[in-house]
Amino acid sequence: METEISTLGEFGLIDRITKGIELRNASSLTGVGDDAAVLSYPDTDVLVTTDLLLEGVHFDLTYVPLKHLGYKSAVVNFSDIYTMGGTPRQITVSLGLSSRFTVEHIEQLYDGIRLACEVYGVDLVGGDTSASRQGLVISVTCIGDVAKGQAVKRSGAKDTDLICVSGDLGAAYMGLQLLEREKAASAGMKDFQPDFAGKEYLVERQLKPEARKDIVAELAKAGVKPTAMMDVSDGLSSELLHICKASDCGCRVYEDRIPIDYQTALMAEELNMNLVTAAMNGGEDYELLFTVPLTDHDKVEKMPGIKVIGYITKPDLGCAMVTRDGQEMQLRAQGWNSLA
Amino acid sequence: METEISTLGEFGLIDRITKGIELRNASSLTGVGDDAAVLSYPDTDVLVTTDLLLEGVHFDLTYVPLKHLGYKSAVVNFSDIYTMGGTPRQITVSLGLSSRFTVEHIEQLYDGIRLACEVYGVDLVGGDTSASRQGLVISVTCIGDVAKGQAVKRSGAKDTDLICVSGDLGAAYMGLQLLEREKAASAGMKDFQPDFAGKEYLVERQLKPEARKDIVAELAKAGVKPTAMMDVSDGLSSELLHICKASDCGCRVYEDRIPIDYQTALMAEELNMNLVTAAMNGGEDYELLFTVPLTDHDKVEKMPGIKVIGYITKPDLGCAMVTRDGQEMQLRAQGWNSLA
Repeated sequence: METEISTLGEFGLIDRITKGIELRNASSLTGVGDDAAVLSYPDTDVLVTTDLLLEGVHFDLTYVPLKHLGYKSAVVNFSDIYTMGGTPRQITVSLGLSSRFTVEHIEQLYDGIRLACEVYGVDLVGGDTSASRQGLVISVTCIGDVAKGQAVKRSGAKDTDLICVSGDLGAAYMGLQLLEREKAASAGMKDFQPDFAGKEYLVERQLKPEARKDIVAELAKAGVKPTAMMDVSDGLSSELLHICKASDCGCRVYEDRIPIDYQTALMAEELNMNLVTAAMNGGEDYELLFTVPLTDHDKVEKMPGIKVIGYITKPDLGCAMVTRDGQEMQLRAQGWNSLA
Repeated sequence: METEISTLGEFGLIDRITKGIELRNASSLTGVGDDAAVLSYPDTDVLVTTDLLLEGVHFDLTYVPLKHLGYKSAVVNFSDIYTMGGTPRQITVSLGLSSRFTVEHIEQLYDGIRLACEVYGVDLVGGDTSASRQGLVISVTCIGDVAKGQAVKRSGAKDTDLICVSGDLGAAYMGLQLLEREKAASAGMKDFQPDFAGKEYLVERQLKPEARKDIVAELAKAGVKPTAMMDVSDGLSSELLHICKASDCGCRVYEDRIPIDYQTALMAEELNMNLVTAAMNGGEDYELLFTVPLTDHDKVEKMPGIKVIGYITKPDLGCAMVTRDGQEMQLRAQGWNSLA
C-alpha cells in the first residue's frame, strides 16, 4: 500500500504520525500541536543537544531500513545527553521529505523514532515537516535533565586521571564497510541476497546503535563520577583530542588496551584494512569515553563492559597512542572532511 | 577573499563561527563546546520550538543574502516562543553545507544569526555542522521561558472572544512575488539592477521579518492576556483554522478589517493578483494572531498596531470570512502542498 503524501497534506500527515502519542515524563507538560512544547524543569539543570542527518552523507537508503534510521536518529541524540551524565526526556524531530517518500515510508521512520522513545523513556514533543528537493533531511533535538551542577563536561579531565571506554570500538565502521561492499556487489542484480553470515554484530552496530544508558547507571551505582565524558561518534582519536583540548591536558592510550570485537578484527583482515585505524577513527560506536580519578582504579577495573585504556597527562606531553612495540604515535583529529 | 571550508576542517570551522560568543541569559549555564548545552529554568516553564529551512523550498539564494537568511532563520523561531507568551533565551543551529559554500559564506550566515540573537537577547548555545550533498540546510531550535502555567496555547479561544491581529498581512508574500519577478527579469543578464523603488517595505518583510516582541510586551502592559495565540507563518486562514480546531470553535473574520499595507495593495494590482487571497493565505508575515475576551474590547481597540478582525463562534457555525458584500466564504487551509 502506497499513499501519496499529497493526499493527506501537511497537516493530515502530521496528525497521522503524531496520533496516539502519550507523554510519560513529568517534565513534559504539553507536546505536539502548538507553536512550542511546554516543559518544566524546576529541580534540575536542563541539557540540550541537536543532530542533523542528511541522506547521502549520513545514511544511504539503499541498505538502511527507514525504521532503523528513525531509531538511530533518536538514539544518537539520547547518547549526547547520557554522555553529560543526564537523562533524555524529550525530542523534537524535523523532517524534510522529497516527493519519492510515501506516507508509509514516513510511518516506518516514525515507528523507529517511537520505538527508541519507548525503549529510552523519552517523549516526542514537537517538530517541523517540510518538503525537500534534496532527499531526506532529519534534524533531531533532545532535551534532558541532570542534577543541578552535576553535568559531566569535556573540560574536567585532570593529570593522572584514567581514560576508560565502554564496550568495543570499530564495529560500526566495519559494519558500514560491509554494507557498502554488499551494495557494490548487488549493483544491477535483482533479488540479491547480501552475505552477512558471521558478521551480524557489525551490521547491527552500524544500523541500530544503542546509547549506553546502562553504563551511566552502573557508574552512578558504583559511586564513580567521571571527570570528563563524551560519546564516541566521530572516533576515539577525535574525542580524546576534544577532551584534552577542553581540559588543557595531554594523554596516553595503549594500542593493546583498545577493546575490539573479534568480528571487527576478522572483517578488517578480510578487507585488508588497518584494524587499529578503524577502532581509533571509525566513529559511530556511541560508546562512552570518560576519565575518572586514579583513586577509582579498582572500581572501574571491576566493572564489566568498561576498559581502562590509558591516562591523562600534563598538556606539554601531547596526545599519543603507545603502540604494541612501545612507539608513540601522535593522535590526529579526523572529524568530518566530506567538504574537501 | 574566499576560504575553502576544507582548509579549516569541521572543528576549525566550528571554532571560527562560535568564537567570542558570550552568554547573556542567566538560564544559559554553558553553551557551545560540549555534547550538550547546560541550561537552568528553576522558576519558569520551558518552551521548545524548532524550524527546518531548506534551500530551494524555503529560500532561494539567488536573491536572499546569507546574512538576511541567518537573521530570518533565528527570528522565525523566536516568533514561535513569543506567540506562546514567552521569551526566547537560547537557540541551537544545525547547518548542512554543500561544497560550494566558503568559510566567508558561513560567516555571513552566522553574522545574521548573531545579529538576531543580539537584537532579541538570545544565546547561541549549540548546533551541528555537516557536509550536505543537497544545498544549504538550516535547522534551528529555540528554547525560551514563560511564567509557570502561563503559556498561551492554541486551544484557549472561547465563543464571543475577539480575534485580533498585529501589523499588516500579505506584504511578505508580495515581497516574494516581487523578488521572483526580478529574478526572472534578470535571467542571463549581467549587472542587472532589480527595481524595488516604492516597494522597499515588501522586500524587507520577505527578507528580514521581525518577531512581534513589542506586541507581547504591550499586551502584558495593558493587562490583556490572550486566550489563544499563534504567529502568522502559513497564512491567516490556516492559523485561524488551527486555533478553531484546537479550541473547538468557529469564527467569523471580516474582509474589510484585514490590515493591509498600501504597498501590498499596489503590488497585488500591478501583478493582477487577488489582494485578499494574498493577505489570507500568503504567510510568512510573522504577525501575531490572537483572541481576547470580549471584555477586553476597549483595551485592544486603543492599542496601536493591533486590529480586531472578527470574533470566535460556537463550533457548528464553522470558520468563514465575511466579504465586503456580506457573503460568507468558508476558510480553507493552505499549508504546504509542495509535495503534490
